[in-house]
Amino acid sequence: VFEVNWDAEMAEKGGYPHFMLKEIYEQPAALRRVMADRVSPGKIELEEINLSTEEIKDFNKIYILACGTAYYSGMIGKYVIEELTRTTVEIDVASEFRYRDPIVDDKTLVIVVSQSGETADTLAGLRLAQQKGARVLALTNVVGSTIPREADEVFYLHAGPEIAVASTKAFTNMVAAFYLLALYIAKIKDTVSREELAVYIDELLKLPKLAAETLESSEEMIKGRARDYHLQRDAFFIGRNTDYTLSLEGALKLKEISYIHAEAYPAGELKHGPLALIIEGVPVIAIATRMSLYEKTLSNIKEVKARGADVTAITFRGEKEVEKSVDHVLYIPKINELFSGVLAIIPLQLLAYYTAVEKGYDVDQPRNLAKSVTVE
Amino acid sequence: VFEVNWDAEMAEKGGYPHFMLKEIYEQPAALRRVMADRVSPGKIELEEINLSTEEIKDFNKIYILACGTAYYSGMIGKYVIEELTRTTVEIDVASEFRYRDPIVDDKTLVIVVSQSGETADTLAGLRLAQQKGARVLALTNVVGSTIPREADEVFYLHAGPEIAVASTKAFTNMVAAFYLLALYIAKIKDTVSREELAVYIDELLKLPKLAAETLESSEEMIKGRARDYHLQRDAFFIGRNTDYTLSLEGALKLKEISYIHAEAYPAGELKHGPLALIIEGVPVIAIATRMSLYEKTLSNIKEVKARGADVTAITFRGEKEVEKSVDHVLYIPKINELFSGVLAIIPLQLLAYYTAVEKGYDVDQPRNLAKSVTVE
Repeated sequence: VFEVNWDAEMAEKGGYPHFMLKEIYEQPAALRRVMADRVSPGKIELEEINLSTEEIKDFNKIYILACGTAYYSGMIGKYVIEELTRTTVEIDVASEFRYRDPIVDDKTLVIVVSQSGETADTLAGLRLAQQKGARVLALTNVVGSTIPREADEVFYLHAGPEIAVASTKAFTNMVAAFYLLALYIAKIKDTVSREELAVYIDELLKLPKLAAETLESSEEMIKGRARDYHLQRDAFFIGRNTDYTLSLEGALKLKEISYIHAEAYPAGELKHGPLALIIEGVPVIAIATRMSLYEKTLSNIKEVKARGADVTAITFRGEKEVEKSVDHVLYIPKINELFSGVLAIIPLQLLAYYTAVEKGYDVDQPRNLAKSVTVE
Repeated sequence: VFEVNWDAEMAEKGGYPHFMLKEIYEQPAALRRVMADRVSPGKIELEEINLSTEEIKDFNKIYILACGTAYYSGMIGKYVIEELTRTTVEIDVASEFRYRDPIVDDKTLVIVVSQSGETADTLAGLRLAQQKGARVLALTNVVGSTIPREADEVFYLHAGPEIAVASTKAFTNMVAAFYLLALYIAKIKDTVSREELAVYIDELLKLPKLAAETLESSEEMIKGRARDYHLQRDAFFIGRNTDYTLSLEGALKLKEISYIHAEAYPAGELKHGPLALIIEGVPVIAIATRMSLYEKTLSNIKEVKARGADVTAITFRGEKEVEKSVDHVLYIPKINELFSGVLAIIPLQLLAYYTAVEKGYDVDQPRNLAKSVTVE
């Protein structure tokens, strides 16, 4: 549906019309790299992290700091780490953390997340945390940038260069990094058994292949949705648990490049306000991959449907019940529900991308935004 | 500018055209009631709370649970309690908390907040927290409702009956309750000196009078803003620290009754995405009452102004610098900046109210919403 004008830049873009699409398609390979040398069947080793078993057991909380997309990866991280390790995880936007004398000390593990490693507020948060005696672990993509140079421990994301302003493969690898960290800490703290760990790892190792499958199976349907979405001004993303945290990133993508006022809500919060904005034709994207909460989310879907919303659900292949209640369903391959974020984000990235293309926007360089925010 | 049709109901409404406006104007009196018998010069006593000094010192974290407006009062509570008492405060939407096996034990003080005392998810969160051994303190308005009956400790808000669906005076009293709790805990934990405490209390005691002043001084200007806002579809609220947490409630009010897609952001997050939506004429409301962050917020205001936003700032009387950078300034009386939320919310409530009236909506009964959410 869109016209591609091939030019010299296309070589760099590997045949893709935009860096963003190229980077979306690089996700299976990027996921392979973030796991390489770190995960193998039954085994997870993070050799770059020099924290002793005693130190890890000694932390009484983890504090995640980041901005924008990296912050949303941290939201997923919070849920997954708490669930797997039973450690309290606080999370704060770096620009808030740095100015509010946060409660952090030498019993806190601070995790800072930044694709570029140069995000000004995140760097300031890192320094403040260190002054307060915390150990700082950086999740960063750009090797040798300031944040990993100053952090105590570094986990490189290995997503490869990311050029498009809207982050895709770096985000996915941040989320995958949190999965690895959660399992690594859970193993040390003995909050998952050896057998459970082996099962989780088997699931993790499937992600690159399943991400490729998700790309292939979503593309055509998403193009269709984008044709509808390009006429919309608003959109709401709902979900519960990790599906909610992922909704935040889905909404951000649609804001950043498609200029649609998209907003995410925990599905259970709809009745407490946002439902007033749900009228005939308003697009709602419901993510429903946490199967223990499936019926609850379905009930929220029916609420918005009853008000005339145009609902697109994202769920696992085979979960056909939702079809009765929504306008469109996008199926992703089955994976342990704790790790569904890495797959479910893919159609949301494609939706933002194709909607922006339909609208004729500059996908790789959205208005007002920079790739790396190196000033406050 | 709006036509008022007087009818029989008006007696109940005390001469106001809607319950919401009546309740907005009852805030000075409601604030007096929430402090009566609890605060006097130099002294704060919460006799209804049966927690010993040892128990309070023993809690290693506080966990706030609520939905909607009550949740946003809790966000302010989190910031203020952490600042004054140096106790870690977690906060969660009740519908999320109840389904994610939260990390809560007998060292946790759980504070649940619900105007009606019947909010289904909050009640379920309370029960779960008690099962896990936590002590639960309820902030509730309706005496004898289920939540205070089941909670271990109860702090009644004494806001009086609230009929309008969109909460105003109950919200303000929730925020005031958190101020009292924060000072009470700070006194016991000795994180503020006796002299500081006396100064904070003097400020608290000024709130009812200053709320009345704020009502009087904002009304006309807000009516003018509402005439502009009733044509808008979107709005963004920005602020830092407690000004950010208050922005969340300001945005919710505009959503609930004016059906404007309003969204709040920490001002420092603008560059990480939402700035893409700021174009010519988009309304931005900037709250700037945290004076140590004033220059930072001003710099964010200039960013949105440079993109053509129509900016209304809320700040303290006398802070004239901002006038150079914005279209409209709404001044509130000077108060200790930690407690500015109770005053700064008033113009935001009036803005939502008058915008809804301009649009001809049913202010007291907005579409799709109920006063008390007693089902999931």
